[in-house]
Amino acid sequence: MIVNAYAAPSATEPLVPTTIERRDVGPKDVLIEIKYAGICHSDIHTVRGDWGAITYPQVVGHEIVGVVAEVGSEVTLHQVGDRVGVGCMVNSCRECDNCLAGMEQYCLKGNVGTYASVDVDGSITQGGYSTHVVVVEDFVLRVPESIPFDAAAPLLCAGITTYSPLAHWNAGPGKKVAVVGMGGLGHMAVKIAHAMGAEVTVLSQSLRKQDDGLKLGADHYYATSDADTFKQLANTFDLIINTVSAPLDLDAYLRLLRLDGTLVNVGAPAEALPLHVFTLFGNRRSFAGSGIGSIGETQEMLDFCAEHGIAPETELITADYINEAYERVLKSDVRYRFVIDTASLV
Amino acid sequence: MIVNAYAAPSATEPLVPTTIERRDVGPKDVLIEIKYAGICHSDIHTVRGDWGAITYPQVVGHEIVGVVAEVGSEVTLHQVGDRVGVGCMVNSCRECDNCLAGMEQYCLKGNVGTYASVDVDGSITQGGYSTHVVVVEDFVLRVPESIPFDAAAPLLCAGITTYSPLAHWNAGPGKKVAVVGMGGLGHMAVKIAHAMGAEVTVLSQSLRKQDDGLKLGADHYYATSDADTFKQLANTFDLIINTVSAPLDLDAYLRLLRLDGTLVNVGAPAEALPLHVFTLFGNRRSFAGSGIGSIGETQEMLDFCAEHGIAPETELITADYINEAYERVLKSDVRYRFVIDTASLV
Repeated sequence: MIVNAYAAPSATEPLVPTTIERRDVGPKDVLIEIKYAGICHSDIHTVRGDWGAITYPQVVGHEIVGVVAEVGSEVTLHQVGDRVGVGCMVNSCRECDNCLAGMEQYCLKGNVGTYASVDVDGSITQGGYSTHVVVVEDFVLRVPESIPFDAAAPLLCAGITTYSPLAHWNAGPGKKVAVVGMGGLGHMAVKIAHAMGAEVTVLSQSLRKQDDGLKLGADHYYATSDADTFKQLANTFDLIINTVSAPLDLDAYLRLLRLDGTLVNVGAPAEALPLHVFTLFGNRRSFAGSGIGSIGETQEMLDFCAEHGIAPETELITADYINEAYERVLKSDVRYRFVIDTASLV
Repeated sequence: MIVNAYAAPSATEPLVPTTIERRDVGPKDVLIEIKYAGICHSDIHTVRGDWGAITYPQVVGHEIVGVVAEVGSEVTLHQVGDRVGVGCMVNSCRECDNCLAGMEQYCLKGNVGTYASVDVDGSITQGGYSTHVVVVEDFVLRVPESIPFDAAAPLLCAGITTYSPLAHWNAGPGKKVAVVGMGGLGHMAVKIAHAMGAEVTVLSQSLRKQDDGLKLGADHYYATSDADTFKQLANTFDLIINTVSAPLDLDAYLRLLRLDGTLVNVGAPAEALPLHVFTLFGNRRSFAGSGIGSIGETQEMLDFCAEHGIAPETELITADYINEAYERVLKSDVRYRFVIDTASLV
């Protein structure tokens, strides 16, 4: 099946319209007619080779929602016409300890990423800036009816990437949670942490997005460009979710943690970051990483968002705007996620 | 009260015999006739100014056991003649959140260290290489009769520093625990983790102390000088206790952690250490620090060691051997802790 898509021809050229081939629908596969695809900062890192060399042309996009168009003979989880989603992974080994524990995002052989990853058949996976995708049924999520369809797309990466650490590290009533960065991930972290009942503080470079932050559920908003912020908030937080991919002064942020607090990075700087062990001794602090979430947890997150009426703030674009959208993402000039209407992929 | 002691006159000179003044016994104080004092690597770092400038002359030593010689009028916890111990701290603010939570080692104003710290009366605390010390009663521990008195001393730092993270991060049956470094702290971590029921692996530079390690309770012993160790043990451990103060390749050790595993540093390198966030993403790993333990937990540790028949391996020395002992500690030439017989402080 040949389908329309938008692909990066190289690390340095703009994305261009193209066609790609999707595999035949196997017995356990679902063919999805993609309706919307979010633009994640990771898409840009990937096509530009920031995280390592990739094969071109490459179609990215791992915040995908659409409608089931066809199901394989053995599919039991989804039916034609269902509203479904696909996130950052489309398969895993299914036999390592982590997969068996239902934590396929941490597959010890590496999960199969939705794009730029080696699929089980040896081909390179192609992502969601496309009209159709074929995915094995148990990596396809159900998107509740109450979530606006276009806004649902970013939940599949920005949503789960922040929901998972917030849930794992017990954000909730009585907990003070800080969110570093008010971008695509950060604004979702604010909404979700607030819905979980935590007291939420945004730590952003400036106060430019303060009104938004407070509207989305933050209780407090501080500028990290103000050195006073770090004095005032020392020993305060149970949990800090750092959504920023640029290198930060880890010691400065770690010192904001209270007893047994954890700084969790979901932002992914490529370079090594320095930190002082003495900073961790104070308050028995931890520095941790968290990568997306499991399939089970992603479904839980979608249901949680439906129940709490949470959806990302999005700006809907057509495919011919993707390259300009990339430039705006790089300048943090988006409130808060671009979503591509795939009907424009002609 | 003027008492005999051994003090560092400067950062570069050997320790020398001297006398120091101990305060009068206040209503809540206990006067302890010190019997034994352990030599901790921290003593050497401190007197040599590795962790910052200090005031000289300075008496160090924070692994202290002795007998209660006098009690203040309001003391209720200890009686004359009791076997007692003093560890790394002798007071704290008693009013911050951490003190109120019974975690005075993490006192937000900084606990009062047993030496080289500013005491509540403004004087500089002087440590255990001395015949007597006066300590407020609730920072004095009970040393169970069944623990050999000289061997009990190192429990007050090496013991609690390893017991606390092992207990906090749930070392026990079904858990795989690695101990990095087979020195004073490392050998105690092995004994305690084994007694807690964990499967214990030692990661030491060489196999030189392998026989000891296995005898003390380790199930496995690997040399970190062998690159194969890091391949073989990837994704294995629930908990790694790093007792080494020298900088290590954190990424290499973090990769040995399985899902939700934690690398806890109790060793205290002064310099910043680099690590890659991507290493933390794998298996949702954490890097944490842990500093000694609370007074309550220290008592729990002493009782645990008594119950399980655990005591440090020690080499008893007289005071005139302290400087030579320091050189041997720096060469890792001690199995596994020097203990000073304070009767030799004449």
